[in-house]
Amino acid sequence: MRVVALDAMGGDNGADAAVRGAAALSLEATDVHVLAVGDIEQMSKILDDVEYSPKRLTLVRADGVVPMAADPRAALDQRPRCSILVASQLVASGEATALVSAGHTGATILASARVFQRLPGVQRAALAAVHPTEARHGPHGDPFGLMLDVGATLSATPEDLVAFAVMGAAYSSIVSEVASPRVALLSNGTERGKGTPAIIEAHRRLLVGPLNFIGNIEGLDIPRGTADVVVCDGFLGNVVLKMLEGVGEVVRDVAREASSRKLKWRVGLSMLSGGIQELKRLTDWKAYGGAPLLGFDQVVIKAHGRSEARAIRNAIKVAAKSANGDLIGRIRDGASAAGLGDT
Amino acid sequence: MRVVALDAMGGDNGADAAVRGAAALSLEATDVHVLAVGDIEQMSKILDDVEYSPKRLTLVRADGVVPMAADPRAALDQRPRCSILVASQLVASGEATALVSAGHTGATILASARVFQRLPGVQRAALAAVHPTEARHGPHGDPFGLMLDVGATLSATPEDLVAFAVMGAAYSSIVSEVASPRVALLSNGTERGKGTPAIIEAHRRLLVGPLNFIGNIEGLDIPRGTADVVVCDGFLGNVVLKMLEGVGEVVRDVAREASSRKLKWRVGLSMLSGGIQELKRLTDWKAYGGAPLLGFDQVVIKAHGRSEARAIRNAIKVAAKSANGDLIGRIRDGASAAGLGDT
Repeated sequence: MRVVALDAMGGDNGADAAVRGAAALSLEATDVHVLAVGDIEQMSKILDDVEYSPKRLTLVRADGVVPMAADPRAALDQRPRCSILVASQLVASGEATALVSAGHTGATILASARVFQRLPGVQRAALAAVHPTEARHGPHGDPFGLMLDVGATLSATPEDLVAFAVMGAAYSSIVSEVASPRVALLSNGTERGKGTPAIIEAHRRLLVGPLNFIGNIEGLDIPRGTADVVVCDGFLGNVVLKMLEGVGEVVRDVAREASSRKLKWRVGLSMLSGGIQELKRLTDWKAYGGAPLLGFDQVVIKAHGRSEARAIRNAIKVAAKSANGDLIGRIRDGASAAGLGDT
Repeated sequence: MRVVALDAMGGDNGADAAVRGAAALSLEATDVHVLAVGDIEQMSKILDDVEYSPKRLTLVRADGVVPMAADPRAALDQRPRCSILVASQLVASGEATALVSAGHTGATILASARVFQRLPGVQRAALAAVHPTEARHGPHGDPFGLMLDVGATLSATPEDLVAFAVMGAAYSSIVSEVASPRVALLSNGTERGKGTPAIIEAHRRLLVGPLNFIGNIEGLDIPRGTADVVVCDGFLGNVVLKMLEGVGEVVRDVAREASSRKLKWRVGLSMLSGGIQELKRLTDWKAYGGAPLLGFDQVVIKAHGRSEARAIRNAIKVAAKSANGDLIGRIRDGASAAGLGDT
């Protein structure tokens, strides 16, 4: 039985989405037990309205939550018993084997840095994100690629970029079950001399390393899905990821506008409903689940702030799958094989 | 009469698109005269098949062209009479007032750097690009925003970013006729402390400067069109712009796939044809025209490599409009007002 600690209080949909997601999962015949951490009264009230299995869902008390707009440092200092800190401590103490949070991203990163240890050879943690791609990945044909860092840090040294590559490959091999994930550096050209000095040096190191490194890719390759794992610094990754969200929103707006303006267009859209599943996937992928925060000695999955119950349920499953696949051990081995931290 | 020098030999569609575009424009009652520079025999042959007005189109001989895959430095060294160099020299000598090229981007930048002067206060030229936006810009409702630099340089100092802002605002005010273009820095958060050290310092300088600076924007804001002019370094701009192209390609592929697979979907798509004009615009904008290379003492418009005749015609019109609006004088004045080059 895998025990997952869930910060059930954060996120735009609050405890409702988190608790409903955990409740739904508890009814499936999985080997996952969720510790839902938060305001007991509030969580109990939500459970009153839904079916769940008490064998696979336990409520754990915390006091306070980091509000989505708060400064994470001050908020954690002021709330030592808040849900993200209590959930993290359950993992650090061994009562749970993975952490899931749909709350404040900065607070999740900071709580992890305070409560967990960084892995040997990893100077900086990285937040990864999945993004929709035209190409499929792995034996199940996952229509998503992994990109990291998307904002845990700002800049990255060559050593950081190599560590991101190692961690992303370990995660992709477990969660998408890609045997030897294709890893690429995001740059302004495919030639090995293209990019910032950090990219050029990371490229040199990855070429002689143990990963399946396919070289630099360009912006075009992100939606195409040329690589399974896209590596970049947190500044670039953040801008790119948010732009993909923006494109998705605009495409949705345009489709909604078209269907509301004319009956003919509405009929056309409904006739297309099968065909636009692909498009929906490309624009609506945020609802699917979570993405890992990598570099610590524990499994941390960050669900998107707008997550609904289904996304929370998926994020918990991904956390358990990561723990089952020994994500942390694989990153340790990968970092060692890549010679990280040797100097 | 504005005289525009056109490098008619480059581009994926070669002399054909360039000469046909110039020929089409010559039949309109505009005050533009095009000097089409390239292989006389090849260009004459194309003109044999189309209508044109010799009063507004003259062929000028050049020997050789920079191939799209060539190293631009070596190619220019080996071909001192190639089309891009001859066209640039026509502008530098005053025989033409603007340069248009659909050829090799690097060769256009390098030829400009060799033949033209950089404007006072401008340390680095910037290549701008238009990108489709949900919001409209200017009195004609242009569905495009301007972004720069998208790849003339790699990194940018705070002073470079301020210069890009000045140049982008001058261009937007002339070509989109936006009276006071909203200028923004692309960053990983809207707060003024967000971003790289160069962005934070440029933010500080733009806040006290003469431009209509709206602060930082995030990736989300690019497709939304929150700003008229988006400022970033060439590395970030290149990745972002190519990603937008990639998204457009994927959306087009999905639509094509949908319409080829089922009759019902094909009918649905055709019923939507009015409604998807918006989507077409968002995915197909590259065909529309050109984008400026800014920072030199002459007007330079780079048409996209895949340009067809209509895009070449539009790029020539944009070049003439830029010259008519005194783009160079406005950048000079803007750089001086922003205190560039004062130290």
